[in-house]
Amino acid sequence: MSILKIERKVLEKNDELAARNRELFGKNNLFVINIVSSPGAGKTSLLEKTIEALKSDINISVIEGDVQTDFDARRVARYGVPVVQIVTNGACHLEAKLVGDAAANMNLENVNLLVIENVGNLVCPAGYDLGENMKVVLLSTTEGDDKPLKYPRMFLNSSVLVINKIDLLPYVNCNMDILKKNALQINPSLKIFKVSCTTGEGISEWCNWLTSQIKK
Amino acid sequence: MSILKIERKVLEKNDELAARNRELFGKNNLFVINIVSSPGAGKTSLLEKTIEALKSDINISVIEGDVQTDFDARRVARYGVPVVQIVTNGACHLEAKLVGDAAANMNLENVNLLVIENVGNLVCPAGYDLGENMKVVLLSTTEGDDKPLKYPRMFLNSSVLVINKIDLLPYVNCNMDILKKNALQINPSLKIFKVSCTTGEGISEWCNWLTSQIKK
Repeated sequence: MSILKIERKVLEKNDELAARNRELFGKNNLFVINIVSSPGAGKTSLLEKTIEALKSDINISVIEGDVQTDFDARRVARYGVPVVQIVTNGACHLEAKLVGDAAANMNLENVNLLVIENVGNLVCPAGYDLGENMKVVLLSTTEGDDKPLKYPRMFLNSSVLVINKIDLLPYVNCNMDILKKNALQINPSLKIFKVSCTTGEGISEWCNWLTSQIKK
Repeated sequence: MSILKIERKVLEKNDELAARNRELFGKNNLFVINIVSSPGAGKTSLLEKTIEALKSDINISVIEGDVQTDFDARRVARYGVPVVQIVTNGACHLEAKLVGDAAANMNLENVNLLVIENVGNLVCPAGYDLGENMKVVLLSTTEGDDKPLKYPRMFLNSSVLVINKIDLLPYVNCNMDILKKNALQINPSLKIFKVSCTTGEGISEWCNWLTSQIKK
């Protein structure tokens, strides 16, 4: 019972700090997305394609979350956008405090879009509000069409599903209709995009929608 | 500080129960592997191929761990082996207690190989001993060659790395030499197999090695 109470306290504290982040982001007129997925689903690749498409129109900043290494921050920095790397040192998700600390070290003036790339984990980050406007869950076709039912909380707590690696559909056992049906069964209001970060297919639809969400 | 103490207590309790599981498995002369990976890397597919290849020679039983659904247990049950499903109901990893409870409901006499398929998560299951002989980490080529460095604990705590989906190598950005180098940098004693559960390539090498580990 004491463990449950402590966990509740941790989550309450996280919600408090997430609300503080949300206030800061709101003051700066920022649109903030929290990208979540399994390891290797293509979060950084989607971010690279998104920055490439939008950086001449809007100002983007990035917070990178990783268990170890700064590989992703280096990949993103090559595109000339400000990026802060959070290394969680073993922890399986980002928390609002870490994001708040990172944001305090960033110049958020004139930034339109802040992208938080979470740790690669389809379970734990679902439970942690970081102060974002929405969670965007990325799922690759190679993971299979049953994943929304097997990891429901992430799909329930996300507003958008981006299905990546559609170029690999001919080679993998993944039925897109079933995948979409499973995702909408968990969360009927999910907005769904289909993309390939390798061929670029579907990236413009995703970027147009993202731009439409941003308050300039 | 109190949270850290509670976490340590949880892990100590887990280690105690894992030791109890290990004793039970040892008494029954069982070889036990704990298969861990990201969601969709192919744990259940590897299990299906392994059962198919070995079930006429050895007796296999399975414990399936999932956040939700009994899809994997149903897939495995079709091969005619005893299987117990653990639904963690949101929890991100299996613990020794759950495995002990499952084992208490199984007839372990004459079983040679017990396979525990963990929850799909490349972070959290690394820290939990279930009483297994070894962790087998599965990584698919579609996840990319940088993953051992980004999720080091899982590779450090595993004895075997099975690289799956090698049939997709022509279509994905994954260099096998770099992947192996990265894995061995984290854990120089990792035994590495390369397989495709789709084409069957490499499955016999993996199964031959697995058979050699089993005390009949």
